[in-house]
Amino acid sequence: MIAVMRFAKGHGTGNDFVLLPDPEGAIELTPHLVAALCDRHRGIGGDGVLRVVRAAPGTGADWFMDYLNSDGSYAEMCGNGVRVFARYLVSEGLSAGPEIGIETRAGVVVAVVGDDMISATMPTPRVYAESTATIRGQHHPGVAVDVGNPHLVCAVQDLAAIDLTTVPGYDPLVFPAGVNVELVAVDPEPVEGAQLHVRMRVFERGSGETMSCGSGACAVAAATLCGDGVVAVDVPGGRLFVTLDGDRCWLAGPAVIVAHGTVSLDGLPLKDVVGAAGAAGP
Amino acid sequence: MIAVMRFAKGHGTGNDFVLLPDPEGAIELTPHLVAALCDRHRGIGGDGVLRVVRAAPGTGADWFMDYLNSDGSYAEMCGNGVRVFARYLVSEGLSAGPEIGIETRAGVVVAVVGDDMISATMPTPRVYAESTATIRGQHHPGVAVDVGNPHLVCAVQDLAAIDLTTVPGYDPLVFPAGVNVELVAVDPEPVEGAQLHVRMRVFERGSGETMSCGSGACAVAAATLCGDGVVAVDVPGGRLFVTLDGDRCWLAGPAVIVAHGTVSLDGLPLKDVVGAAGAAGP
Repeated sequence: MIAVMRFAKGHGTGNDFVLLPDPEGAIELTPHLVAALCDRHRGIGGDGVLRVVRAAPGTGADWFMDYLNSDGSYAEMCGNGVRVFARYLVSEGLSAGPEIGIETRAGVVVAVVGDDMISATMPTPRVYAESTATIRGQHHPGVAVDVGNPHLVCAVQDLAAIDLTTVPGYDPLVFPAGVNVELVAVDPEPVEGAQLHVRMRVFERGSGETMSCGSGACAVAAATLCGDGVVAVDVPGGRLFVTLDGDRCWLAGPAVIVAHGTVSLDGLPLKDVVGAAGAAGP
Repeated sequence: MIAVMRFAKGHGTGNDFVLLPDPEGAIELTPHLVAALCDRHRGIGGDGVLRVVRAAPGTGADWFMDYLNSDGSYAEMCGNGVRVFARYLVSEGLSAGPEIGIETRAGVVVAVVGDDMISATMPTPRVYAESTATIRGQHHPGVAVDVGNPHLVCAVQDLAAIDLTTVPGYDPLVFPAGVNVELVAVDPEPVEGAQLHVRMRVFERGSGETMSCGSGACAVAAATLCGDGVVAVDVPGGRLFVTLDGDRCWLAGPAVIVAHGTVSLDGLPLKDVVGAAGAAGP
């Protein structure tokens, strides 16, 4: 008998996840299994796993988003993850929508599911200091923003010209646990429904440059908009909208389920492979 | 109605493919669709697509491996692709095995399917010149090897120390169409059944460093072994065996099918996305 597991794959602006339907929490989700599922060449591939588990009674939510990073470590929250998770619940008939409470390790988050766009409540971003990112010897002044996790938002002239293949330098006194660095440029082309339109690239600590970062988009909105309103944030993987309204923050954007299937546990790289020295490819 | 397509995902030593069962060749496999399927964040993800099409009568094969690179361009042959394709045929009951003739654009290739290992006939590698790769200012002498495609095999002392994030420099007079660069070091630990044990890393033209390259392993075997025999070639994604026997060459190694499922065409990134300037992430 070959052990197989059901899965789905989905993404929000290129931030992608392996979804595992597991209502009773029966899967033994070891770091090894998570890493193997997220392996882009020898597994399914994803930035993380979203296990779909029934929430404990009394939490005010029907479903718990058990989110794990691609290395198997736990994460509290992920804005794009919540939006993909909500899309999955509605498309699978597990929730009627459009408004869904989802339990996360950071508390219950509310998602609103539309035909194309899904919004989710996010921690309110808080700009708290000035700081500088150093990229290939160039200094980029910016501001430190807390969105539950640390961000450093730097305005740049030519977004495309910057090489983000190396870890940006930062002030460890301001960011003792590391930082996600966002580079941002204002786009003069107006976007309907938004007071401001910006483009951003992001270097996520521990990951490198990524196609999207939900909390990063919120940090960028808080750093670039004076007061309340809506900011359209173009990331390499698509367009997000951040709404700032007093002490509330919403992240909106597309979220799609791309594939459904079964994965063979026997086929996953759960044991270390015999391999050459040196890192694997792109 | 949502249009869905059946798929499988498999890999040989980390060289991974989206398999599309399409016996009658009914799918309109545009470069856009191939690129969307191979998109690692917004599609299924793969180094290429292997469409499983019934071979034309009289070819001496039952199945045609319609292989396309991840950018949608056609490729003649792919050693790891043939091995994954053969695994799929047997595991799906489309071929009884163990010996299978598979039609490719480079003619009929023979694969032999075992429990773990699958071997496939490869073009015989031919060492034809001395040349040099230049990596980050360091010159690495090596030899030019033709395996149907061009390779430059360079022996190095410390395989792990070399930075392969930039395109190696090469002599355009020797390699007018570019070249795949293999760095190789002999591993003194013996491997059962092999006369020689080496470790290799590979920079594939147009792709960068990859986890495996079947023709590269054959080139390395021809460049390092004097005469006929078996070479164990460890690549970042696992272990391959190359058998050189006069004018014949076999590539053997594991090949697994990891997942089966359906992919929603509506969910794939078939249209260009609105995105920030600059390349996407890792």
